[in-house]
Amino acid sequence: MRVIGVIGGGQLARMMIGPAIELGFELRVLAETNDSSARDRATTVGDFRDLDTVRSFAQDVDVITFDHEHVPSDIIVALEDAGIAVRPGSAALAVAQDKIVMRRILEELGHPLPVWAVAETEADVAGFLEANGGRIIAKAPRGGYDGKGVAVVTDAAQVAEWLDGGPVLLEEMVDFSRELAQLVARRPNGETAVWPAVETTQANGVCAEVILPAPSTDGRIIEMAAVLGRQIATDLNVTGVLAVELFETTDGRLLVNELAMRPHNSGHVTIEGSVTSQFEQHLRAICDMPLGSTGSRHPWSVMVNVFGAMDLGRYSRLTQSSDVKLHNYGKEPRPGRKVGHVTATGTDVVDTASRARAVAEIFHADI
Amino acid sequence: MRVIGVIGGGQLARMMIGPAIELGFELRVLAETNDSSARDRATTVGDFRDLDTVRSFAQDVDVITFDHEHVPSDIIVALEDAGIAVRPGSAALAVAQDKIVMRRILEELGHPLPVWAVAETEADVAGFLEANGGRIIAKAPRGGYDGKGVAVVTDAAQVAEWLDGGPVLLEEMVDFSRELAQLVARRPNGETAVWPAVETTQANGVCAEVILPAPSTDGRIIEMAAVLGRQIATDLNVTGVLAVELFETTDGRLLVNELAMRPHNSGHVTIEGSVTSQFEQHLRAICDMPLGSTGSRHPWSVMVNVFGAMDLGRYSRLTQSSDVKLHNYGKEPRPGRKVGHVTATGTDVVDTASRARAVAEIFHADI
Repeated sequence: MRVIGVIGGGQLARMMIGPAIELGFELRVLAETNDSSARDRATTVGDFRDLDTVRSFAQDVDVITFDHEHVPSDIIVALEDAGIAVRPGSAALAVAQDKIVMRRILEELGHPLPVWAVAETEADVAGFLEANGGRIIAKAPRGGYDGKGVAVVTDAAQVAEWLDGGPVLLEEMVDFSRELAQLVARRPNGETAVWPAVETTQANGVCAEVILPAPSTDGRIIEMAAVLGRQIATDLNVTGVLAVELFETTDGRLLVNELAMRPHNSGHVTIEGSVTSQFEQHLRAICDMPLGSTGSRHPWSVMVNVFGAMDLGRYSRLTQSSDVKLHNYGKEPRPGRKVGHVTATGTDVVDTASRARAVAEIFHADI
Repeated sequence: MRVIGVIGGGQLARMMIGPAIELGFELRVLAETNDSSARDRATTVGDFRDLDTVRSFAQDVDVITFDHEHVPSDIIVALEDAGIAVRPGSAALAVAQDKIVMRRILEELGHPLPVWAVAETEADVAGFLEANGGRIIAKAPRGGYDGKGVAVVTDAAQVAEWLDGGPVLLEEMVDFSRELAQLVARRPNGETAVWPAVETTQANGVCAEVILPAPSTDGRIIEMAAVLGRQIATDLNVTGVLAVELFETTDGRLLVNELAMRPHNSGHVTIEGSVTSQFEQHLRAICDMPLGSTGSRHPWSVMVNVFGAMDLGRYSRLTQSSDVKLHNYGKEPRPGRKVGHVTATGTDVVDTASRARAVAEIFHADI
């Protein structure tokens, strides 16, 4: 029996449960609360910032992986020092955990980035604002997700409070035509697998829709994204799934926006859309098992997030949408909360997207 | 939270776990042993023949369903009398639990059957043998599965021991060109959904391979099977998934071989092959939720059972088969035991089958 320990009990851990069962692995989850999304496999409930809690959870597993990037790096290093297999490892994770480190290392490696700088003072911000058109992005280096810790800035004073907490990452407002994401899986032995790049649409800084593959008049962008994703996974020695969020600029370049070293919202579409889902592939990769095919099962797959509530009572309204698949994260309703997603597949992208949106709308409760 | 109780902890219950999680249902399993295939959700370990055990398991669930057909009918009736929703219900299940009852009722309903009779004495057997070419099939009416309780008979004395236990079902040796299975799902409100009929191949009386859809020179057989399956599900008031095992005779007729009122080995191929798998559909049906599309995701899908052992150590040999999906039932190895299955999908049936067989062969341990 291969035993996999997942730190974090969110929907990413939850969506690993099904594939783990089919592959014959035992999945154990260290969850934050009793009612976590992955509560079915939560063998421990405790604080992932507490070394003893994490060490005790990790001692009987074959490999440790993550539902999120917020585990303190000293804890991850302590696990590795104790001889525990942690995938991705601490060195790779450090790049995903701190956006300033990420920018520095990707720049050293020569990967295409937006114009960026580190601000320590309001004067730094003012200077960067002036050099970049008076409108920039500020990012807290650590702890952000789903649009939290990111702000559009037109006046240095807006960043004052953040600067009290330490350096802030500044970036140009990229003139992009759309956002893409490149998913890559990589094994400890170096084998990689890439899915076709997806197009992502955000609403209020949060991923709302994903189209697999990214619609393209030619294959050049898909090919560029695959090469870039594979190279970053290899450069950073990532194990497991890596999501590279990308800007496609109006002049035809790709710039790296963010990295996530785990299954990612942009990859949920692979559950139905691909021969191997990101969740199965992540488990195969961290167990150093041959990777699965990333071929598509359908010409088009479209995922739409469900925010707010996904209550079972609404399932009865689904009669007209028998080909759209539901994924319920088992979370309490809350306005704006990601509580599930739906995926449609088909041969026409416009029709496929409209079917997925119609079902998501059924669940998009007015709470 | 919708709570589903499954009686029986085999691989069918196991393969319901993933879909239940994605739909947001809570699945609970009454398993026979601590190391059952569905142990991850085994909230009770006990004897399904003990009324108190079953009643206690059932009292807090919204609906009871089954991993097998061996629960005594008086227990099922007792649950219904206590107001518990049992799907399929006792009246339908009675037809699947006793092969003589099944033959009687299907004959009354006018469905096409092999020539059959009930034997109570060796003289009955001898008479049926003489009338049917000297070579017949004898079946124990209850408790058989996977070829157990079925025998080819050429001499009445072969059945003597079975007759001591009660009446035995006798059937002609059907002159069939191949075996098919028709899967149907039906909700309490009467809505049905049929997948395309599959072709099944048995080895030593046990399902070995399944092809979706059943290869056919014309669509007539597929259409006949769908009509028949839908009619039987409706006639018997089945709720959940029904598998109708069929003979296609050399003269182009379909005859009903067996019925199973639950997800069935012939439907495992729907996990990858269909928009909605039999396991998801069974849960939707018993929860009286609109049924999902039974459309195919690929032109061809082929499932091959793995017998004996499916150990994780062999996963490293899968490099050349990245598009074949593994399903490991988490069972201890034993010669001839169904321990898992693999499914390949593709555009050419010969190629697809050969890929699935090659992977199954990797796991087919010499134990």
